[in-house]
Amino acid sequence: MKKPSLVHHRRTPVGAPPGTLIPDEKAHPTTIRLMVIDDHGIERREDVDLDGLRAATRSGRRLWVDVIGLGDVELIARIGEIFAMNQLAIEDIANTNQRPKVDFYDEHPLIVAHMFDGRSVASKEQFAIFFDSRHVVTFQERPGDCLEPVRQRLGAQAGRIRKRGSAYLVYAILDTILDAYFPLVEALGDELEEIEDRITADPRPEDVRRLHGVKRELLIVKRALWPTREMLSAMSREDLDLVPREVNQYLRDAYDHAVQLIDIVETCRELATGLIDLYLSSVSTRMNEVMKVLTIISTIFIPLGFLAGIWGMNFDTASPWNMPELGFRYGYPAALVFMAAIALGLLALFRRKNWL
Amino acid sequence: MKKPSLVHHRRTPVGAPPGTLIPDEKAHPTTIRLMVIDDHGIERREDVDLDGLRAATRSGRRLWVDVIGLGDVELIARIGEIFAMNQLAIEDIANTNQRPKVDFYDEHPLIVAHMFDGRSVASKEQFAIFFDSRHVVTFQERPGDCLEPVRQRLGAQAGRIRKRGSAYLVYAILDTILDAYFPLVEALGDELEEIEDRITADPRPEDVRRLHGVKRELLIVKRALWPTREMLSAMSREDLDLVPREVNQYLRDAYDHAVQLIDIVETCRELATGLIDLYLSSVSTRMNEVMKVLTIISTIFIPLGFLAGIWGMNFDTASPWNMPELGFRYGYPAALVFMAAIALGLLALFRRKNWL
Amino acid sequence: MKKPSLVHHRRTPVGAPPGTLIPDEKAHPTTIRLMVIDDHGIERREDVDLDGLRAATRSGRRLWVDVIGLGDVELIARIGEIFAMNQLAIEDIANTNQRPKVDFYDEHPLIVAHMFDGRSVASKEQFAIFFDSRHVVTFQERPGDCLEPVRQRLGAQAGRIRKRGSAYLVYAILDTILDAYFPLVEALGDELEEIEDRITADPRPEDVRRLHGVKRELLIVKRALWPTREMLSAMSREDLDLVPREVNQYLRDAYDHAVQLIDIVETCRELATGLIDLYLSSVSTRMNEVMKVLTIISTIFIPLGFLAGIWGMNFDTASPWNMPELGFRYGYPAALVFMAAIALGLLALFRRKNWL
Amino acid sequence: MKKPSLVHHRRTPVGAPPGTLIPDEKAHPTTIRLMVIDDHGIERREDVDLDGLRAATRSGRRLWVDVIGLGDVELIARIGEIFAMNQLAIEDIANTNQRPKVDFYDEHPLIVAHMFDGRSVASKEQFAIFFDSRHVVTFQERPGDCLEPVRQRLGAQAGRIRKRGSAYLVYAILDTILDAYFPLVEALGDELEEIEDRITADPRPEDVRRLHGVKRELLIVKRALWPTREMLSAMSREDLDLVPREVNQYLRDAYDHAVQLIDIVETCRELATGLIDLYLSSVSTRMNEVMKVLTIISTIFIPLGFLAGIWGMNFDTASPWNMPELGFRYGYPAALVFMAAIALGLLALFRRKNWL
Amino acid sequence: MKKPSLVHHRRTPVGAPPGTLIPDEKAHPTTIRLMVIDDHGIERREDVDLDGLRAATRSGRRLWVDVIGLGDVELIARIGEIFAMNQLAIEDIANTNQRPKVDFYDEHPLIVAHMFDGRSVASKEQFAIFFDSRHVVTFQERPGDCLEPVRQRLGAQAGRIRKRGSAYLVYAILDTILDAYFPLVEALGDELEEIEDRITADPRPEDVRRLHGVKRELLIVKRALWPTREMLSAMSREDLDLVPREVNQYLRDAYDHAVQLIDIVETCRELATGLIDLYLSSVSTRMNEVMKVLTIISTIFIPLGFLAGIWGMNFDTASPWNMPELGFRYGYPAALVFMAAIALGLLALFRRKNWL
Repeated sequence: MKKPSLVHHRRTPVGAPPGTLIPDEKAHPTTIRLMVIDDHGIERREDVDLDGLRAATRSGRRLWVDVIGLGDVELIARIGEIFAMNQLAIEDIANTNQRPKVDFYDEHPLIVAHMFDGRSVASKEQFAIFFDSRHVVTFQERPGDCLEPVRQRLGAQAGRIRKRGSAYLVYAILDTILDAYFPLVEALGDELEEIEDRITADPRPEDVRRLHGVKRELLIVKRALWPTREMLSAMSREDLDLVPREVNQYLRDAYDHAVQLIDIVETCRELATGLIDLYLSSVSTRMNEVMKVLTIISTIFIPLGFLAGIWGMNFDTASPWNMPELGFRYGYPAALVFMAAIALGLLALFRRKNWL
Repeated sequence: MKKPSLVHHRRTPVGAPPGTLIPDEKAHPTTIRLMVIDDHGIERREDVDLDGLRAATRSGRRLWVDVIGLGDVELIARIGEIFAMNQLAIEDIANTNQRPKVDFYDEHPLIVAHMFDGRSVASKEQFAIFFDSRHVVTFQERPGDCLEPVRQRLGAQAGRIRKRGSAYLVYAILDTILDAYFPLVEALGDELEEIEDRITADPRPEDVRRLHGVKRELLIVKRALWPTREMLSAMSREDLDLVPREVNQYLRDAYDHAVQLIDIVETCRELATGLIDLYLSSVSTRMNEVMKVLTIISTIFIPLGFLAGIWGMNFDTASPWNMPELGFRYGYPAALVFMAAIALGLLALFRRKNWL
Repeated sequence: MKKPSLVHHRRTPVGAPPGTLIPDEKAHPTTIRLMVIDDHGIERREDVDLDGLRAATRSGRRLWVDVIGLGDVELIARIGEIFAMNQLAIEDIANTNQRPKVDFYDEHPLIVAHMFDGRSVASKEQFAIFFDSRHVVTFQERPGDCLEPVRQRLGAQAGRIRKRGSAYLVYAILDTILDAYFPLVEALGDELEEIEDRITADPRPEDVRRLHGVKRELLIVKRALWPTREMLSAMSREDLDLVPREVNQYLRDAYDHAVQLIDIVETCRELATGLIDLYLSSVSTRMNEVMKVLTIISTIFIPLGFLAGIWGMNFDTASPWNMPELGFRYGYPAALVFMAAIALGLLALFRRKNWL
Repeated sequence: MKKPSLVHHRRTPVGAPPGTLIPDEKAHPTTIRLMVIDDHGIERREDVDLDGLRAATRSGRRLWVDVIGLGDVELIARIGEIFAMNQLAIEDIANTNQRPKVDFYDEHPLIVAHMFDGRSVASKEQFAIFFDSRHVVTFQERPGDCLEPVRQRLGAQAGRIRKRGSAYLVYAILDTILDAYFPLVEALGDELEEIEDRITADPRPEDVRRLHGVKRELLIVKRALWPTREMLSAMSREDLDLVPREVNQYLRDAYDHAVQLIDIVETCRELATGLIDLYLSSVSTRMNEVMKVLTIISTIFIPLGFLAGIWGMNFDTASPWNMPELGFRYGYPAALVFMAAIALGLLALFRRKNWL
Repeated sequence: MKKPSLVHHRRTPVGAPPGTLIPDEKAHPTTIRLMVIDDHGIERREDVDLDGLRAATRSGRRLWVDVIGLGDVELIARIGEIFAMNQLAIEDIANTNQRPKVDFYDEHPLIVAHMFDGRSVASKEQFAIFFDSRHVVTFQERPGDCLEPVRQRLGAQAGRIRKRGSAYLVYAILDTILDAYFPLVEALGDELEEIEDRITADPRPEDVRRLHGVKRELLIVKRALWPTREMLSAMSREDLDLVPREVNQYLRDAYDHAVQLIDIVETCRELATGLIDLYLSSVSTRMNEVMKVLTIISTIFIPLGFLAGIWGMNFDTASPWNMPELGFRYGYPAALVFMAAIALGLLALFRRKNWL
């Protein structure tokens, strides 16, 4: 599994004026996908150019402008001009190290969210949404996203989503982005419970490494979720003409989902902390057992070995003072019995100390 | 004991429109139990169908509609229509991964609670309550609950509960659900105190595993309790026509119970943390003792064994330089005395180091 | 020392209607002590019955009704009726697992506090106070309390306390109950400093057990103190006709005392946490020293013992290739010198590694 | 270094009426120092008696009454009467276990602060300040304080401080008391950085003990600082006639100093926590190294010693089955080569396991 | 890498009057750089003296006065007088241990920030900004800063920054100072991820030391960032005539950057905590493995060595009771087989214990 990075490097140089756009050579080239929405259905156009976009805005119909790839900062700046976006908003769109937030520039909100593909935490990308009463303009870092169901609902015959205003479409997009957090967070929770089972049964060093990996991914998801919750709360609190009262209700529902996700993430994080404790105490306990075995064996056999060494000495038995026991008739059996007695005595001692 | 899962998996696919109901094939089939309440008593009907339900609502009498099992999402949607529930409310009822909360859709509250059977944390199920001035509609995941006493009080001769409005019945249900937390939390507290006694007396690895299990269950109960407290607080703060001032007083009493439960849970959690510390320091201390025994034995007998090995060497004693001590008259006793002196010296040293 | 329990078991069954009173067969039988207060002194009557109590309330004089023991729930309910107490208040009085709190039922406050005898944390009992403009009714679990000084001040010649209203008497009771926390908390602090001295000098396993015991008692006191602070704050904030402005000043003083107590308890808890760290690092350090001694001894003597073993082998010295050194004239002294050189070399190595 | 105590014992008995003053036989005898302030200079009188004090108050000039030593509670009560202090204020002055705070009794503030001498945490004493428009009355536990510079500024020719009102003098005293925290806290910070250097280089058990001592002192300073910050904030928020707008600005400056001090203390506390971790991981790592040496030596020499033991056995070589290798021509060299091979093999294994 | 100090020592003596300026002999000598701004460009003058500064202020043109080095407190006080700064503001400028903050003295803000050079945490210096409608006066501790890009933008042909008021210039300076935090924080994040990789692969003691160093630097950056965030928030909340609505928008953008930085720093700190856990559990696990090897080797060979010792004893085989096995025909092979059986039995036991 690719390790997702925790720190996203800024490209803007120190001291650049606000609104500076720095092209990122590793960024995906920019293309525009246009969805023209009217009451009867949608028209989907890929790879639209600036002129096509301008023409579409003049048509008076509702639009979802889907800007994919942030490689061409010039083009992004032009798109911003078409929709009269604030320069700071355009900077936030192009510099993909923003936290999720909503900024209200002259009443036109710019929403920044973090989008995952629902399978891997490493798939995180910045997703920015600008909208006014007729247009929704979204900016994503790479082609491919979790929003295809929204596009299908837009095109569907009875698409409730098509008949409602921009704010409802924005809600639908945000809710879908949040929905894609669920499989991710649930997978992390499942992996944690697996690690829990294994640590309970037989703790191994790789479990701690996996645990660290899960904690790291939870940290990334948490960093995306907390400001998302704030953003949704700010969206539904702010009394915007753009957001009708009915959509507000849906935003509160999305807010509930964010709170649910945070609840799962925090629970997982707490469980992970408990698992570190469990692992450490398991390792301590095992070490204790290993040490006991070593100590018991050593404590019994090292003294016995010493006795055998004594009677293996080569003192000259010519002197009656030197090792007379070696000449005794029952010397050897007596020595063995003596050794066995010592061993049994030590075993009894260990049993009394509760080591056996 | 079955290990209760921490993460409940969502069934709604990513990007589904709000209000989407996905049948869960593992869910219990849906049945409706109806309690028709009037001043003289209650009439209890099991397995009512939709027509029966519609007829009952038209009778003008007060109803408690008890929907058991969430397997038939179609039926649930129809019940929702009868009582003019909001689509988002119906979605929350059917998707059983909600946190406890209260939502006010057009003044008609939807309450979501977590219900336990009072015996096991694994029995957690989502319990949703919708009510208006005449009807209380409750949705639970499985047959069997802790609410039988409420039904009996409804039917009882002098049942105060029968004469009061819907809000009081809702309070009675919520209070009973909270009541069922007490035996659960008390059992966890008792188990903790048992583990505490055992860790103090003789710490064993299985104590840590049980401790982890208790912490895990406390985590689940805590996750249910904190939002329940918020929900009860929101219920009594919100100035609803549906909730008369007198019932508000009872809700504050239920709120007090939730705070009591949280207090116990947090105390247990803090105690559990202290027990981990106690266990780890006990294990460390024990290891220390084991190591001391090993070190004392090794430090005494390994040098002595070396000496015995020296005098067991086979140097040719023909040379006067080679092992003349082996030929001394008192060589052996002197060697033994020397060894004893070393052993006693080391013991004295250990005593001075405070190891004995 | 008796270990005080952390979880107090509820007796009310799940689903009982609010206000249910369940007799506790282990509770102390209920008696009533009456203090009739007028400007000239007090009259103290023990073991008053209900009729006596009713007569006294009709006399129009100020009363302190002291209900001791909660065994007779019937009697308690009757006393409640005499003073027109709310049913929920009576339930809180009889079920002694309440947190400290103040409830305002129809402007008549019910205060719940936790009382200690000033000597042992295990002496905790629930103390409930109901008051109106003329009566103070207190309920305690057992005979014997820390309130005798208040009773004496009531009876004293110049007793300021007698001339002021119910609210001042309630303040005097609450302040005295809080006063009794001080010796308790100070004793815990002293014990902690003692444990600290011993852990610094010579850490022993029983110090950790005592530390755990102190932390446990601090947890219990903390659980009583934090809600007590909230209760006193609510009392002085709430603009009650019953509490004159002058008494409010005294309540703020009691609030200050609660804050002081919390400050001491939190300091003690933080110190206790630091002591666990100190203990664990002491044990680790000691283990390290023990291990070094073992390693030094083993590393020196095991190789030397091996050499002695080599020269103790019985290869047939008839072959000139077999153990010729055994026949050397200076073989033995050379072997001893060689061994000493190895030992000194290893000692030098250990010194360079900073192990000696 | 004398270990400062964490818990200051109360002297007032449980249940004493509010305002009770208990003489403390260990307290310093009480003396009064008077500073009479007018536009031209100050007059300083030591050991003034009550009559002198009364006369001075009647003179209509500004006074700083400096009460030193709290041994004579009678005298303190009299001084309180002269300035019409509230009885609760006098109690707080005499009972020196108050937290820093400001109480507003009938608009006349009583400030309680903790004063250090700037050298040792053990020098903590309670410092109480009462003031009205003309008088500042201060109470300290012992002679000797950090306020001499304030007295000199009062007497100085161009003393700005003399021309301003009581509130400015109170500010000057408070700011000087806070100033004396800086050398204390800086010394603790320096000691921590010293301990840090030593733990990084060569961790020793006494470092942990010193670390514990520093943490303990930081805890004491923290307990003094947090409520001091609240007190200063309350002083500048409260809209008192006594405190002109200009002095308010200075109080905010003092508040800034308190925040700076808290910032340093919290940083030090966090560093101290990190040092415990560093120490424990250093000790673990060292233990690991020690254990590796022991294991390598034992694993190599114990098997070799066993082989030497085998060939040292005395089986009767008359039987051709018994130890024929002892009679081989190259038996001994072969044995040595075999042993060396085993040793080298084990060393290679250790190197592969990354132990060497 | 030079270790940056955590505690900056104050120079003002205890009890000094507010506004006291103490020269710091180690401080850099003070020079003034002047930038005279008009619509057509800027004029940059180095080493201006006080008279030159006074003349420039009288010219009515906009100025950026750049005071470099705080060694000459006299000069700083004079500069303060020219711009009518408050005495407390001047004290804050000269005493470089302030936390980041904004103070509003008579509507003229004094901003204190911490500036880094973007490369090393040790480069921290205090940066103070005073401004009114025409002048921006900045004070820095040393020559050299990260503000050269701002000066270039001021001089650039189309410099938007030149045409806007003081508040915009102040914003540009603050934003650039914040910008210089990014490379610093990103470098710390990168170093953490490197340490993470190494601890996962092969934990070494120097990793913990580097980890401690990174945590220490994060602590310093955190201490600078949190109050900076508060300062920016206060700047944009406060409704100042000096700060036009348009600049407020930019300040909120700078506030967003501060929040981003805090987010990165807190994430890094959490990761660092996780790494300590990972390191400790790795070390424990390794110790466990080492101990197992030692125990297995000892447990197998110590008993075998004892047996070899037995049969190496020199009991006089003249007695038929003494060591008859030495004379058996198959004594030696039988002994070897017996030993091998013991070894294999122990290995089987270890395998069953899951140690192999």
